[in-house]
Amino acid sequence: MAGKEIEKLIKAVAKLPALGTRSARRIVLQLLKKRDTQLLPLIEALQDVADNIKTCPICGNFDTEEPCSICTSSSRDGKTLCVVQDVADLWAMERVGFYKGKYHVLGGVLSALEGVTPEDLNLASLPQRIANEQIEEVILALPATVDGQITTHYILSKIKDSGVKVTTLAQGIPVGAELDYMDDGTIQLALSSRKNL
Amino acid sequence: MAGKEIEKLIKAVAKLPALGTRSARRIVLQLLKKRDTQLLPLIEALQDVADNIKTCPICGNFDTEEPCSICTSSSRDGKTLCVVQDVADLWAMERVGFYKGKYHVLGGVLSALEGVTPEDLNLASLPQRIANEQIEEVILALPATVDGQITTHYILSKIKDSGVKVTTLAQGIPVGAELDYMDDGTIQLALSSRKNL
Repeated sequence: MAGKEIEKLIKAVAKLPALGTRSARRIVLQLLKKRDTQLLPLIEALQDVADNIKTCPICGNFDTEEPCSICTSSSRDGKTLCVVQDVADLWAMERVGFYKGKYHVLGGVLSALEGVTPEDLNLASLPQRIANEQIEEVILALPATVDGQITTHYILSKIKDSGVKVTTLAQGIPVGAELDYMDDGTIQLALSSRKNL
Repeated sequence: MAGKEIEKLIKAVAKLPALGTRSARRIVLQLLKKRDTQLLPLIEALQDVADNIKTCPICGNFDTEEPCSICTSSSRDGKTLCVVQDVADLWAMERVGFYKGKYHVLGGVLSALEGVTPEDLNLASLPQRIANEQIEEVILALPATVDGQITTHYILSKIKDSGVKVTTLAQGIPVGAELDYMDDGTIQLALSSRKNL
């Protein structure tokens, strides 16, 4: 019904996360209507990213520089390494602005269900980084899911012999949450990890 | 936190309908991860559409040809004109494949709230088209909303003097619907427009 160029674009847009054919059709229609204010700027922004953004060979972050600006920064604590699942998690940490160390992006977590093995992740270089960069603390900030916890324990088994201090994010009741709305597992965990005041 | 190219792209994506900053971030991240299979094909598809798709000067449809393939088709009934709000509605009609006439896309409906006046719509050329193309029937297939109905009546007042037959889509219970789930207005309307069997 629409031209093949439009159909092809709808298909490409529908492949993006959280979008289906229906929302893709709406998006493409809006782009067609707002050619100069939306379609052309979007193409330019995409092309800019495609041309300039590289994956940092050291930590796995996305940046215009290679290695990335976090890896080369002299104002950051080079002795602490935060291991995260994805660049999105790195961005979340950076939004908070509290962490001043460096990162190691895995690009996923181990998953028996989805067939993700250690070879699929940016894991092989981690023990080497710890040795080369004389890392003193590795913070494993992986998701609090089963796969995330399995990955945490896998990494721990691989790096504990190096004698580096390994920590993980505290688990418990999130800020602002009401007990009534928390799941049983979280309440139990928060209770067993209770702290003295 | 992310480079300025990435931030700019996230902003451009977040402007698309039904997307916010959070979903835009997820989309951009996936595009960065799947550079060759998603990012580059998407740029190509967008560029293709930007280069090749034009707005038909007669009916307002989007097509690679100018006038569009529906306007120039000899196999379609040139005496019937279906007035729709948007190209999305034209696509919906074409998906059904039942209608064989031509179209007139308004590009919106009149709206006091959003300040849409007759001058903002592709309306001025309609009486002329009816005269020039010797149209015999105009089907007003505008949305069954207040604004849509106001637009229907406005168009009717503008073209009824030309003596053309003007019809509108039937309103009532949609196929497959249960009475229990229909709104009161629809039930009342379906009852008052009941048909002999």
